[in-house]
Amino acid sequence: MAYCLAKQLLKGLAVPPEPILDIAHLGHLELLTPKFEESARFFIDVMGMTQSGEKGGSIYLRAYDDYERYSLKLTPAKTTGMAHVAYRTRSPPALERRAAALKGSGFDVGWSDGDLGHGKTFICKDPDGHVIELYYDTEWYEPHAALKPSLKNQAQRFPGRGCNVRRLDHWNGLAADITACKEFFENYLGFRLTERIVMNDGSEAGIWMTATNKSYDFAYTRDHTGAKSRFHHVTYALNSREEVLLAADIFLENGITIETGPHKHAVQQTFFLYVYEPGGNRVEVANAGARLVLAPDWKPITWTEEERKKGQAWGLKTIESFHTHGMPPVEHK
Amino acid sequence: MAYCLAKQLLKGLAVPPEPILDIAHLGHLELLTPKFEESARFFIDVMGMTQSGEKGGSIYLRAYDDYERYSLKLTPAKTTGMAHVAYRTRSPPALERRAAALKGSGFDVGWSDGDLGHGKTFICKDPDGHVIELYYDTEWYEPHAALKPSLKNQAQRFPGRGCNVRRLDHWNGLAADITACKEFFENYLGFRLTERIVMNDGSEAGIWMTATNKSYDFAYTRDHTGAKSRFHHVTYALNSREEVLLAADIFLENGITIETGPHKHAVQQTFFLYVYEPGGNRVEVANAGARLVLAPDWKPITWTEEERKKGQAWGLKTIESFHTHGMPPVEHK
Amino acid sequence: MAYCLAKQLLKGLAVPPEPILDIAHLGHLELLTPKFEESARFFIDVMGMTQSGEKGGSIYLRAYDDYERYSLKLTPAKTTGMAHVAYRTRSPPALERRAAALKGSGFDVGWSDGDLGHGKTFICKDPDGHVIELYYDTEWYEPHAALKPSLKNQAQRFPGRGCNVRRLDHWNGLAADITACKEFFENYLGFRLTERIVMNDGSEAGIWMTATNKSYDFAYTRDHTGAKSRFHHVTYALNSREEVLLAADIFLENGITIETGPHKHAVQQTFFLYVYEPGGNRVEVANAGARLVLAPDWKPITWTEEERKKGQAWGLKTIESFHTHGMPPVEHK
Amino acid sequence: MAYCLAKQLLKGLAVPPEPILDIAHLGHLELLTPKFEESARFFIDVMGMTQSGEKGGSIYLRAYDDYERYSLKLTPAKTTGMAHVAYRTRSPPALERRAAALKGSGFDVGWSDGDLGHGKTFICKDPDGHVIELYYDTEWYEPHAALKPSLKNQAQRFPGRGCNVRRLDHWNGLAADITACKEFFENYLGFRLTERIVMNDGSEAGIWMTATNKSYDFAYTRDHTGAKSRFHHVTYALNSREEVLLAADIFLENGITIETGPHKHAVQQTFFLYVYEPGGNRVEVANAGARLVLAPDWKPITWTEEERKKGQAWGLKTIESFHTHGMPPVEHK
Repeated sequence: MAYCLAKQLLKGLAVPPEPILDIAHLGHLELLTPKFEESARFFIDVMGMTQSGEKGGSIYLRAYDDYERYSLKLTPAKTTGMAHVAYRTRSPPALERRAAALKGSGFDVGWSDGDLGHGKTFICKDPDGHVIELYYDTEWYEPHAALKPSLKNQAQRFPGRGCNVRRLDHWNGLAADITACKEFFENYLGFRLTERIVMNDGSEAGIWMTATNKSYDFAYTRDHTGAKSRFHHVTYALNSREEVLLAADIFLENGITIETGPHKHAVQQTFFLYVYEPGGNRVEVANAGARLVLAPDWKPITWTEEERKKGQAWGLKTIESFHTHGMPPVEHK
Repeated sequence: MAYCLAKQLLKGLAVPPEPILDIAHLGHLELLTPKFEESARFFIDVMGMTQSGEKGGSIYLRAYDDYERYSLKLTPAKTTGMAHVAYRTRSPPALERRAAALKGSGFDVGWSDGDLGHGKTFICKDPDGHVIELYYDTEWYEPHAALKPSLKNQAQRFPGRGCNVRRLDHWNGLAADITACKEFFENYLGFRLTERIVMNDGSEAGIWMTATNKSYDFAYTRDHTGAKSRFHHVTYALNSREEVLLAADIFLENGITIETGPHKHAVQQTFFLYVYEPGGNRVEVANAGARLVLAPDWKPITWTEEERKKGQAWGLKTIESFHTHGMPPVEHK
Repeated sequence: MAYCLAKQLLKGLAVPPEPILDIAHLGHLELLTPKFEESARFFIDVMGMTQSGEKGGSIYLRAYDDYERYSLKLTPAKTTGMAHVAYRTRSPPALERRAAALKGSGFDVGWSDGDLGHGKTFICKDPDGHVIELYYDTEWYEPHAALKPSLKNQAQRFPGRGCNVRRLDHWNGLAADITACKEFFENYLGFRLTERIVMNDGSEAGIWMTATNKSYDFAYTRDHTGAKSRFHHVTYALNSREEVLLAADIFLENGITIETGPHKHAVQQTFFLYVYEPGGNRVEVANAGARLVLAPDWKPITWTEEERKKGQAWGLKTIESFHTHGMPPVEHK
Repeated sequence: MAYCLAKQLLKGLAVPPEPILDIAHLGHLELLTPKFEESARFFIDVMGMTQSGEKGGSIYLRAYDDYERYSLKLTPAKTTGMAHVAYRTRSPPALERRAAALKGSGFDVGWSDGDLGHGKTFICKDPDGHVIELYYDTEWYEPHAALKPSLKNQAQRFPGRGCNVRRLDHWNGLAADITACKEFFENYLGFRLTERIVMNDGSEAGIWMTATNKSYDFAYTRDHTGAKSRFHHVTYALNSREEVLLAADIFLENGITIETGPHKHAVQQTFFLYVYEPGGNRVEVANAGARLVLAPDWKPITWTEEERKKGQAWGLKTIESFHTHGMPPVEHK
């Protein structure tokens, strides 16, 4: 097991090890799509996002209040899924500390020069094989004149187009061994567990983890198929539940398949709405109300198998596809 | 000037000093009221808060999703104002580090045994004299059977009474020397500046600072009267702007004086509504939408004197009393 | 078939017959409950209604902006269901005209002296046997001092309690012969059909009718059981969809069974939430947005069997109990 | 004074005269603008309206759920103001009855063949000289394939652009003699007064009148300038107060001058937001919650001069320009 630099430094002081606080937040995802043009139109026209870059066949997209240049890289591919996820560290030394901790762990891949919009990057893989990039140097978004906001504490003007998503919120991965993933994120990256699902056999079937005051920056839920490093969904935050309801009409009018919602999750209390973008990836728009996890010693909430069977907060039964449908699809031979 | 322990520890590693991350969040305030019964009824019946303790003539109050036992201590007094504000640290060593940094600084008062609901406490004063308590050990709220929530990731059941405030959000103090306060909070407590007002003469007239991903945990604005350590307002978060609008009707129906709002601040974009509780303290209910400060290197936004004169986000002129009325009132001789 | 007085008057002028405009609006319902105390507590504490009368074992309840004394009469009984529904006419002659039209039709029951809160009443039954009262003289609600609103264009102060329902909106009956009911309401009472469901065999399975600019004042849907004059639900209007979402939490926290929702109906676009009050009657809270039927010659919308199978507006499958569960329950022998 | 046909017909029956119910609803307005292109862009891009016609230099515009072809005719002119307002009657005979009542009254202008989208029209002027058109034959809007809604009970697909206004709601005129206007609308057109302002000298300074269950279809307020037949504002309805708040951001981002709001009127409780379109006409977006006037014998609410001075519902002072600024502007010589 790896120890963080701070722990090592503090050892001499004979105080208990302190939390790793080196990850600042979720930075961006790279999504793959077999219908590149339709997916691009979905994110721009329907979600209300803005294209802020183009390179090597991919386009880079942003919500109106993402402070970095982009939060989504969209890449044409033969199938759906997530090519990588990136987290920004809190400082340059924080990046070095995480790299040092991962080096030789078997999860490390190594350093890269980065990509459009961010610099030096350390790459690793979680136990299920999802590719994770860590970086600190980033390009702050500078809007063109036409996209300058009226209020200078906002990254870009409010689009007034489609769903008007405000910022990247979280993502959800699928994994075979949830507990192994949880321990990886706790030990190597310092994420804290806020909620989880434990089955009757004692195994963990879902985890929600955070590096911020949001109650989760990502979730992992169990992949029953034996497939590896699959993707479940990415979520953009809206300012209110009313905007989630408006989004439902916008999806309906644009012929976008609504999978389930709007409704309120029991887990994390998120007000959710899930759709499939035209390429086939699941996308969520959501609002968390005023809920934050402020306690530094938050006691993880455990939901049992029976509690999960009750469905969502207000009784909606969890739709079957939510448990079975990951990206890319698993080929049935 | 004081340096944090982490900075000192890291010095030998020849990396730049890293941020102090020792404060977890705003914990509670102690408000004074000359109309104790009426103030108590306001917080319980109109704001929808719950009494969770009583000691030495004070009562302790909580919003339904505050995880600690209380977020407001209400104390009978001859006048209005704030007796102290308390911040919870991220860990026991974090509390020790802050105490060590403050010791001998001239701002330190010393250790106390704590109060109802929290343990060992280090007390200090900011440059304007506001009393600040730092603590780590805290009592997590345990609801009676009748107040148990349906969803176990919530601290207490949703009241369905009055404004239904969810959690303590931030507070606002008045101070003569805003810059001195800013430097105190940066250097001794590690708060980060997110927005500020700078007058044409170069002086700072307002600061908004955070230790979390909320865009501010407190603000200080200039006291023009020469009085010391005064209070401007305390704010509770609601889940939506619609609930802020509902709160306006509830205040109206209960004969509570609405000072200004609902409207959207240009600074921090908070959707706000200010009232005076019957004792005379200004209280705000607010919603921040999905806005968070996630950037670890957030670049503070500076608003000029001219920009402030434009009024609030949608053009509402800032009401005069907002600039002149602090608690306790200044006696005019 | 009966003709209205206005039609007869206009005959001599050789203009086409004009619509009957004699019904002003839905006035109130009398609901039966086998759990009187629990039902009363539900309507008062959870729905946020006010008791405004008591007589003969029944209590009379009102939403805060119902202009009449009450909109719900709650009566203890052995089972659930609706004892009668009452519609207010537009004028005294309008009441006489409707009575004259009904007299001798076979649907007429006769005149009564009225009840608490309303005067002279003509009673009839629709083809399925639901008891319908028509009245004009009504008692406008006069709030006690403690319930006086701050704004004098509102009937009563906003309660700030539970769901805060604003006014009675509509009700839904079950009937064996939907078309017979439709014709009864068109010909004798002047209601206009706005939407309907027509099955593949050409039969009508649901009708939505209005006497106002609301898109429906009641709906009738098919009763498959052979039972007569049963009740499906009563609906109270909330001011926003956000309040419907808040109501969902309030029902959840109070242990009220949520049947389905919140979601948006495809038919009529109502944002709905259905629960069972403790006695067993289905109750809805809803919001219609800004939707009104203003066209005097509205062309009824027809939904096919296939369209209905698609579920609600955003894809929610219609819950089975919605089609099967009426009040009172049918005894299975 | 004129009597309606129905009254005359009923005379022989010795029952009291009944209300005139011949006007169905507000149909459309013709607005004048000296900045035609900018005004057109405002209504289409910012308000989210759709152009549905063009004729003689004017364009015809509609909100997404207006059932008629258009609700706004925009005409280039040297100044601002309203060229005419149109109300649809409930039936062809209703139009004939209103024409017969007006003929020879001094308010009548005469018949016209109509305009794009509506047929035979009777034109009159109110006592202040506003031009009023009455018509029954109208063209129901038929959307192009690209604008077809997903739900067939909606006139056009939800735009997902700008403010997304749903339907025309009401308009406000200025007049020298408010009482004369009130009597004109009561006697000749059958509108009902729902609220009014009466000054200390007993004169009426504002009236709100309706022909529907909306609490007003138009308002007239006093013109202090001596100018005639001026326009105050036109209002489009949004589905929620949250959408009014979103509209405020959209206006802000588009450089549209916000005059006042969002806030809640004490009179009629409308949640309002007033802006100036680029040509200079005042435009409102609003939401009424679930408030309707259902009582056929609604007792008009009278607000005194003192009550009006209190400002809006939650205390906002009424902005001075609201009392002084009409369209077209009055030239000061």
